[in-house]
Amino acid sequence: MNKEDKLHAMRHSAAHVLAQAVLDMFPEAKLGIGPVIADGFYYDFELPRTLIPEDLSILEKKMKEIMKAKQRFERKVEPAEKTFEFLKEARQPFKEELAREFAAEGQEISFYENVDKNGKVKFVDMCEGPHAEDTGKIGAVKLMKIAGAYWRGDEKNPQLQRIYGACFETKEDLQAHLQMLEEAEKRDHRKLGRELEIYMMSEEVGAGLPLWMPNGAVIAEELEKLAKEVEYSGGYDRVRTPHITKGELYEKSGHLPYYAESMYPPMEMDNEKYYLKPMNCPHHHLIFGGKMRSYREMPVRFAEYGHCYRFEDSGALFGLMRVRSMCMNDAHIYCTEEQFQDEFLAVIDIYKKYFEIFGIEKYEMRLSLHDKEGLGKKYVDEEKLWIQTEEDVRRVMKKSGVKFSEAEGEAAFYGPKIDVEIWSAIGREFTLATNQLDFAVPKRFGLTYVDKDGKDKTPLCIHRAPLSTHERFIGFLIEHFAGAFPTWLAPVQVTVLPVSDNFMDYAQEVAAELKAEGVRVKVDDNSESLGKKIRGAEKMKIPWMLVIGEKEVAEKMVAARNYHSKKQEVYGKDEFKKMVLKEICERSLPAKS
Amino acid sequence: MNKEDKLHAMRHSAAHVLAQAVLDMFPEAKLGIGPVIADGFYYDFELPRTLIPEDLSILEKKMKEIMKAKQRFERKVEPAEKTFEFLKEARQPFKEELAREFAAEGQEISFYENVDKNGKVKFVDMCEGPHAEDTGKIGAVKLMKIAGAYWRGDEKNPQLQRIYGACFETKEDLQAHLQMLEEAEKRDHRKLGRELEIYMMSEEVGAGLPLWMPNGAVIAEELEKLAKEVEYSGGYDRVRTPHITKGELYEKSGHLPYYAESMYPPMEMDNEKYYLKPMNCPHHHLIFGGKMRSYREMPVRFAEYGHCYRFEDSGALFGLMRVRSMCMNDAHIYCTEEQFQDEFLAVIDIYKKYFEIFGIEKYEMRLSLHDKEGLGKKYVDEEKLWIQTEEDVRRVMKKSGVKFSEAEGEAAFYGPKIDVEIWSAIGREFTLATNQLDFAVPKRFGLTYVDKDGKDKTPLCIHRAPLSTHERFIGFLIEHFAGAFPTWLAPVQVTVLPVSDNFMDYAQEVAAELKAEGVRVKVDDNSESLGKKIRGAEKMKIPWMLVIGEKEVAEKMVAARNYHSKKQEVYGKDEFKKMVLKEICERSLPAKS
Repeated sequence: MNKEDKLHAMRHSAAHVLAQAVLDMFPEAKLGIGPVIADGFYYDFELPRTLIPEDLSILEKKMKEIMKAKQRFERKVEPAEKTFEFLKEARQPFKEELAREFAAEGQEISFYENVDKNGKVKFVDMCEGPHAEDTGKIGAVKLMKIAGAYWRGDEKNPQLQRIYGACFETKEDLQAHLQMLEEAEKRDHRKLGRELEIYMMSEEVGAGLPLWMPNGAVIAEELEKLAKEVEYSGGYDRVRTPHITKGELYEKSGHLPYYAESMYPPMEMDNEKYYLKPMNCPHHHLIFGGKMRSYREMPVRFAEYGHCYRFEDSGALFGLMRVRSMCMNDAHIYCTEEQFQDEFLAVIDIYKKYFEIFGIEKYEMRLSLHDKEGLGKKYVDEEKLWIQTEEDVRRVMKKSGVKFSEAEGEAAFYGPKIDVEIWSAIGREFTLATNQLDFAVPKRFGLTYVDKDGKDKTPLCIHRAPLSTHERFIGFLIEHFAGAFPTWLAPVQVTVLPVSDNFMDYAQEVAAELKAEGVRVKVDDNSESLGKKIRGAEKMKIPWMLVIGEKEVAEKMVAARNYHSKKQEVYGKDEFKKMVLKEICERSLPAKS
Repeated sequence: MNKEDKLHAMRHSAAHVLAQAVLDMFPEAKLGIGPVIADGFYYDFELPRTLIPEDLSILEKKMKEIMKAKQRFERKVEPAEKTFEFLKEARQPFKEELAREFAAEGQEISFYENVDKNGKVKFVDMCEGPHAEDTGKIGAVKLMKIAGAYWRGDEKNPQLQRIYGACFETKEDLQAHLQMLEEAEKRDHRKLGRELEIYMMSEEVGAGLPLWMPNGAVIAEELEKLAKEVEYSGGYDRVRTPHITKGELYEKSGHLPYYAESMYPPMEMDNEKYYLKPMNCPHHHLIFGGKMRSYREMPVRFAEYGHCYRFEDSGALFGLMRVRSMCMNDAHIYCTEEQFQDEFLAVIDIYKKYFEIFGIEKYEMRLSLHDKEGLGKKYVDEEKLWIQTEEDVRRVMKKSGVKFSEAEGEAAFYGPKIDVEIWSAIGREFTLATNQLDFAVPKRFGLTYVDKDGKDKTPLCIHRAPLSTHERFIGFLIEHFAGAFPTWLAPVQVTVLPVSDNFMDYAQEVAAELKAEGVRVKVDDNSESLGKKIRGAEKMKIPWMLVIGEKEVAEKMVAARNYHSKKQEVYGKDEFKKMVLKEICERSLPAKS
């Protein structure tokens, strides 16, 4: 058993131990489901009363006792009828409902029993397994929080109480995880987003529709500047497309048949239904098809930071991470089959370049494939093409040298894709973006180029968005940098702090010279103490503070204090300007403190 | 009578002469209205048959005879009842309908008669006047075209035929106007927009929703770059706001009460109505209100190239000039009353700066005022504030030294505004943009800043959009530059034309060096004759063609041919690069040929 599977079995087992503890505390508890999740497990219960935080300590204590008792996990398979009877007798209606479904599907029903040293069965749960050997081998566990959940996620069903637990192989791993969570809470993009005046939400505008305040708009502008540079040198052309379109375009693209549930309702006028666009691709396809194309101009690459709208359930909305309006670093590459490999590799290189610029040290790619059952439903019904293009992408990924896994049933409706996961500086995982091969839609749109032999050929299309959406990526960056952005990204790059109003003229002069070079600089002209000014600048995490006192004025110097390194150094005025411009121009990562 | 009024009277008179000629040709014709327009007049008629172009020659000939006959225009006022009788007898039901309306409003009804040398009345028309002395004094006239029109613009009414005529004081003026129109047709932004691959429309996306092709996107990007530079140095902050919002925000802003007919229908979800935004102001107001503001940070200036959507009637749509989606060079300045004058003047200065950059030599500003009848309907019901703020703007405009006129009943619903008209290089007038003072909406939004005395004050708001929308402004620029953009704006700035494939390496080297500096450069790698390559580049109006032959390769030179000046000069490779970068950086206007 590899490390990952071992951890999975531990967490599974920990969930059983929790359920045993809950039944010990509330014998009448009804068990829901208890799956493994990213950092542990949860279990849903119907209970006679609402849990309070203190209950978690009691349950944790009970779990520790069970763990100490080293009860063996023993697997048992029973015939369906006997199972139903047993679950009914145990008064576990949710489990019984599941068991009857499994049986109807012809599945084998297995149970795991916790058996103590005396051979006595202390707890039994219907479960596929696998499990740890005994309850003593489930590593380090901590119950984290209580939440509400409906049985099977449906609000028409009974409401259950969900208990979350973290579970790791060692105490040290658990401790590191808890520290990471604590740090993540400090770095919460919603909290920092407000404090650093990056974005705001408004009830009057609507949920999931962030407004970028000036500081956030700066970051978005800088990201776009970076993307435009990279895309310019990568041979992309920019396009710009409207945010609404007639329904027929989305019928043709397949969005309405395959994607309607994520779309906004239509606006009806002139006897036409207009939709907010959920994706930019159909518009780019129209521009590709807007003129005759020759093999000489292939590949054609259209880039747009395009605004899309998706109707997410209001309960699923979360800060910048899950929104209803998003601005995407989108592009579509139309290429021949021979060009596909080079183009796909070039996209992977762009990802790697960005990872370097943003100091993203850990990332993983996943090849998402179709599944057979989804053909004609979730996926266009072209099995042969699926298999062939999946193999093409697999080959290119191997060539790229980037580590990747594979997952069935996760493809886009028009072709296989690469999903990219990145980890922030504190080790939290984010789904960044995708890189997709589309073999289906160019044909639907009748897109062609005239090949060397004078015949019309259909291009392949690569959909890519390495910087994801502004919303998601800036949300990630806030956590990644804890709001202390590298100078090139910082909303205010330099703040000039005169020790007293006597030095204001020189402070303004320094600021004006920096501003003339495009540096985002502010002068703190409040008549407050230097200490207060410094605290104000630190609160806003401004990378450079230039303290201006008598000596600085006399010698045309600046005393520059770096937020990241916490070091203070004296520079000549021009010397500082040169240094900071170099830092901005090279998009340097923050100095370590 | 000043020149303008004299021309107006001439055109009025020419319309009467046309009507007389039509009645001569079709005695049963029913007359509609015959107003004066920018370059002449039109007249609507109900006729027994559809006019054909040849009819215009016949009518023009008849008009010349009437003009030669020098019939006097004589004014006559009649009592209402007599007028109705006369019009009924003359079988002029449309005129009678108007006469009855005028009478009901208590207006005096006047007629003008055309009287020949023998004192015989040749034609009579209900008309306010004034008119020329006689039909011999109506300058130079040319009938231009025939169009359909409904009586009173309502499609439920009878369809009439509209005859347009141009009318100028002298033959020379008329000739110049006709030449301008001919040139405007060559420069038609829809024709050039297609030929130069600037934008496209798609039936599948919908009417009035342009898609910017790569060449158009370059121009939009360059305009935004310019605006961002100017706004950065003007102390603006950028913001970014979503394109949809709940209806309640537009109730509060007054858009739904005053502006609903120009808005898209709502999307209904989660029991809320969401609207596409017709303007960016409410969103900016929310950001201003999103934090406490002190007098120390006033004025606050928020800029955004914001996308707005307005529901224009499909019949009114016209290329880029009248669209349903637009991207606006928008900004809102929140300032104190004391700051208003400086801020308003700074905006006027930005206009002037842009006029210089784009070589716009003729422009005019108009102060648009409220009218008393519109209070509480078209305009917020605060008469005193209207009068006061109108006087404020008037004073500032006088101080600015820019020539301006005034117009009642043209204000925005929240305050007076300056409408800016510009003339293209061929002398055609365009409505560019507005600069508006808003005294009403900040209060509705509860926007405040804490003043020196610690009390909350409501700021004034200036709405401004000097570069208008991308759609309208690029449409203007296409005509203004006849598609031959200055180098900084040109989609492709330099094309390298190797005389044969033997010189391709050096051509690529030259291009790569220019590209590395951010110049938009292409190499024409078709195996075609130099003549054909040059014609291709000229068709696309590329400012610089670099011809590369044996001599250029040997001496590391380029033979640079300028599209605008038509001159060809030989430069050292680096010398050319330096020169073209300077031209781009300074945003030079095209050299004259």
